[in-house]
Amino acid sequence: METLSLARFKALSLDEVRVLETIFWSAGGSRYSLADRLGYSKSKSNALMAGLVEQGLLAESGLQDSSGGRRAGTLQLHGGLGVFVGVDIGAASLAVALFHPDLALLAQHAEPIDVRKGPGVILARVRAVIRKLIAQCGFSARDVLGIGIGVPGPVDFGTGQLVNPPLMPGWDGFSLREDLREDYSAPVFVDNDVNLLALGELWRLRRSLQNFLVIKVGTGIGCGIVCHGEVYRGAAGSAGDVGHICVDQAGPRCHCGNVGCVEAMAAGPAITRMAIEAAQDGASPALADCLRVSGTITVQDVGQASRSGDAAANGILQRAGSLTGQMLASVVNFFNPSHIFIGGRIAHIGPLFLAAVRQSVYQRSLALSTRHLEIHYAPLGMQGGMVGAGVLAVQETLKVKGVAP
Amino acid sequence: METLSLARFKALSLDEVRVLETIFWSAGGSRYSLADRLGYSKSKSNALMAGLVEQGLLAESGLQDSSGGRRAGTLQLHGGLGVFVGVDIGAASLAVALFHPDLALLAQHAEPIDVRKGPGVILARVRAVIRKLIAQCGFSARDVLGIGIGVPGPVDFGTGQLVNPPLMPGWDGFSLREDLREDYSAPVFVDNDVNLLALGELWRLRRSLQNFLVIKVGTGIGCGIVCHGEVYRGAAGSAGDVGHICVDQAGPRCHCGNVGCVEAMAAGPAITRMAIEAAQDGASPALADCLRVSGTITVQDVGQASRSGDAAANGILQRAGSLTGQMLASVVNFFNPSHIFIGGRIAHIGPLFLAAVRQSVYQRSLALSTRHLEIHYAPLGMQGGMVGAGVLAVQETLKVKGVAP
Repeated sequence: METLSLARFKALSLDEVRVLETIFWSAGGSRYSLADRLGYSKSKSNALMAGLVEQGLLAESGLQDSSGGRRAGTLQLHGGLGVFVGVDIGAASLAVALFHPDLALLAQHAEPIDVRKGPGVILARVRAVIRKLIAQCGFSARDVLGIGIGVPGPVDFGTGQLVNPPLMPGWDGFSLREDLREDYSAPVFVDNDVNLLALGELWRLRRSLQNFLVIKVGTGIGCGIVCHGEVYRGAAGSAGDVGHICVDQAGPRCHCGNVGCVEAMAAGPAITRMAIEAAQDGASPALADCLRVSGTITVQDVGQASRSGDAAANGILQRAGSLTGQMLASVVNFFNPSHIFIGGRIAHIGPLFLAAVRQSVYQRSLALSTRHLEIHYAPLGMQGGMVGAGVLAVQETLKVKGVAP
Repeated sequence: METLSLARFKALSLDEVRVLETIFWSAGGSRYSLADRLGYSKSKSNALMAGLVEQGLLAESGLQDSSGGRRAGTLQLHGGLGVFVGVDIGAASLAVALFHPDLALLAQHAEPIDVRKGPGVILARVRAVIRKLIAQCGFSARDVLGIGIGVPGPVDFGTGQLVNPPLMPGWDGFSLREDLREDYSAPVFVDNDVNLLALGELWRLRRSLQNFLVIKVGTGIGCGIVCHGEVYRGAAGSAGDVGHICVDQAGPRCHCGNVGCVEAMAAGPAITRMAIEAAQDGASPALADCLRVSGTITVQDVGQASRSGDAAANGILQRAGSLTGQMLASVVNFFNPSHIFIGGRIAHIGPLFLAAVRQSVYQRSLALSTRHLEIHYAPLGMQGGMVGAGVLAVQETLKVKGVAP
């Protein structure tokens, strides 16, 4: 398929780009509702859409009955626009996807990594995987219109540089954008992993929720924030760093220097530490078996033991969920979100964890804040980071065009 | 002065109202920068502005040098638009102001009240004071174009009704809007007092800061939130209810049912309780004198004792500031604001309070979140609530017009 070159994309008018952006964020809106949403006259928006269909950038996607009984075609971004790349770099895993402009998945690849090996090793893999996926689908580097990347650490969103990422030694100040510039002329956007979880869910919801949180519980605990229908990154880009909220003034010391941080008491390493203690002090025969056989205990092992009814494992999950909920109660009193979506490895460790989170939040938050609050697993699940990276790629590519024609 | 009637205001075009709104939020913007800000062509915006000047709704306000050396007149809202009323109902005080449309103060009145006397008694005073101020300035009820009211409790912003306000027994479900409809045909807007502190500072700053907090420490502790340049009220309108964030799992029981809420340990009543204890157990001769002479101790007394060097009073202020800062540290980790402004009676109790707040926040929050964080007294001080009510009146009156022509 022939795609639009970056040069031709840059030659689109601002009005044309606004149409593409609005359709990207619409769920099968008809031509008529789009005109309304754009604030353009029907004739102006029809002319713009006809032009974009003719250029092969928009496509009709089936027909829907409008309220008047008349059948109005719905539009979506067309593959002629090019392809977008989403990269989800985790502490221990790499996922890369090639997306159609409407975020239909064209190809994907995942592999275990150790992010502590540093940017040289990891970026070599990222570049090789992107190349492989592009070739596999019959595209070339010039068909790539935008690249979005999520990383498990703080990012200066403007420059795309990592800022002192605690889980990524050796990456401080590294610019993924500069590195990928050698292979692609497409713009590269980098964001924190939890911001991308939030952006992914916001797109999935087509902005039907305006104020919600996505919590990720894994090696650390972080939070993506959607406020007024946009991802909120904070004054210095560090909003959502909830892992270091104190939940116990007499708690253990955290690597950040303070005591009682929820991350030090309820995230993955704390769960396995409690499990090893339970195995060693005889509180859990199941976990003791596990430790003897494999020499260590993973969070999956704790989940397995909990599901098979091990009381100590249940106690550990309840304690972790309860402390996470205690932290969230403070956040709920402050932010009053409509929904909290919980993702990350630990979220799926067992139903007791989510139950304990919920109980703790509803008990500790004010009634008015929780009256309509819903707490669920993140609907995009483990795909959230990759989808969020894809949304970032499309959204910011269109925005950059909009800002600097 | 002849003012625009509400009927004539309603006949303004949406474009005209957008010009008025933009000028209200601009600090002496020139005609040229306004055209840019409105996104209109220079000819369209000039025609709109000329029309509004002709109708007596906009006025030139002096001349400023533009960058090109050419002198471009700046515009502001003209008194011909009418007057706006701001009402600040506190737990123990009532302040009412009559504002020019550019928020210049025309007249004001303040008196002590006890809000617990209920809506009948308090609203009778509110109505009498508004009537007095209007007459005093030579206006009549039909010159009032909008009314903004702040109350010390949760408000359903859509309906203007109070929702279970803990400090306002007897007010649950009461609608100030309905009550004032008998006297005025102008729209009435009601909001929580801390949201109005935030709105007032946002207007004072002409939106030059986009993400900040205003904390009010008085009988309770509340927080107004500005996010993406707009006041954020939360999914159910209860955002900023930080008084019930837990700062001590072993703390005293709060009236909300939970233990260790910062409000129960650091707000006005906690400060006076600690002071009475210090007076009774001999820790503070100064506070003991005060208790003997006047039979009680106020927060002002504690501030006075602290300023004169009383060690026990100093300890009380440091403890209250430190606990308030501990709560704010959680909020800073989550929200990463650029500024925190501290207001309310307690804020000005003495320099030790602010110093302890700062120390606690900088110690407990992550470095990235506090690198550029500034913590100051709220610049509008005790006028903040009244100014915020005035901003609410102007902004929402223009917005209502914009939404429902």
